[in-house]
Amino acid sequence: MYDYIRDPDAIYRKSFATVQAEVDLTHMDADIGTLITRIVHSCGMPEIVPDMAFHPDIARACREALNKGCPVLVDCEMVSHGIIRRFLPADNPVICTLNDPGTPALAKEIGNTRSAAAVEYWRPHLAGAIIVIGNAPTALFHLLELLQEGAPKPAAILGFPVGFVGAAESKEALATFDRDLPFITLHGRKGGSAMAAAALNAAATLTRKDPA
Amino acid sequence: MYDYIRDPDAIYRKSFATVQAEVDLTHMDADIGTLITRIVHSCGMPEIVPDMAFHPDIARACREALNKGCPVLVDCEMVSHGIIRRFLPADNPVICTLNDPGTPALAKEIGNTRSAAAVEYWRPHLAGAIIVIGNAPTALFHLLELLQEGAPKPAAILGFPVGFVGAAESKEALATFDRDLPFITLHGRKGGSAMAAAALNAAATLTRKDPA
Repeated sequence: MYDYIRDPDAIYRKSFATVQAEVDLTHMDADIGTLITRIVHSCGMPEIVPDMAFHPDIARACREALNKGCPVLVDCEMVSHGIIRRFLPADNPVICTLNDPGTPALAKEIGNTRSAAAVEYWRPHLAGAIIVIGNAPTALFHLLELLQEGAPKPAAILGFPVGFVGAAESKEALATFDRDLPFITLHGRKGGSAMAAAALNAAATLTRKDPA
Repeated sequence: MYDYIRDPDAIYRKSFATVQAEVDLTHMDADIGTLITRIVHSCGMPEIVPDMAFHPDIARACREALNKGCPVLVDCEMVSHGIIRRFLPADNPVICTLNDPGTPALAKEIGNTRSAAAVEYWRPHLAGAIIVIGNAPTALFHLLELLQEGAPKPAAILGFPVGFVGAAESKEALATFDRDLPFITLHGRKGGSAMAAAALNAAATLTRKDPA
């Protein structure tokens, strides 16, 4: 038998206490602090905080959209399965179009990745949606392209593509895209579906503060 | 329109080339280098390599087990959905018991987390299996406890629990557990389902080298 904490509530309490001890959130809006705490918790890396960037309205925008029943559009199944459904205030649909049967052919047609092609299928759901990207830089780039072309505006973008090719660049594009579009992101190569899902889960916990 | 690489094969090539340029794998077994390359690729962090630990037989053990049709036991749905099924050489079953209906009650009964309780359901599948842990330290700890008590031995453990409570300790326990049990892990707080799935996916790609 090993000596370790077996009580899930105690694990959560100690985890969040550790994040809060190691990350200075005092100068920050409390709700945005909640987002950042859960993102750090998901990856075990307090050191990412200086590289995070966000719109000042990100927490409020996510909370309001979730309460209104907005869809949550995700770029991959890992993000979808990281979203804690019972946290969602309005049975919000979580939509992943990556494995739609038409995606591979559409990718060839538009000369882009499957992840980017999957974003094309978001069009009917984009207005007021929350976008959660945890894998593909091309999904984030292509979403911004659709928005440049006049596609309906989402409520918020949680942008955490990861990796060596295009991740840093796509997140830079997000952070400088539109001063009226709430977002949160992590600059650089780091990211991933756990951080992306954690950001959405944190936003969902904030809805509990709102009147029913 | 943004200027970015849209061809998925070119993205993969450039990604893996970047990892190989930034990580010195020359002193390493080529197959283990494949595992490490894919793990680094999944998280965008070449800096983790000095904290990786592995048994010298880990790549061979995974390859042989996969080719024999071993089950792959995972601690959470995110890992399951990160495993690229078409890479698996023998339609290997991927088993996640976390959301089995009995798990919450069993967790209370054994005084541990749901993730640990889910490991109890692995017992009939353990012999010769590959274990992939990408989230819960308690799952890894409890697995090692079952093995101490004489549960059937898996072929390999890919151990990447993440976070502030128990992750580092459980991976230390794994790395010092049994010199005859192949494993790969990342010491410290970092880890996650993307790294865990990447380790399995890399092992699966190695089976392509074997005679059919």
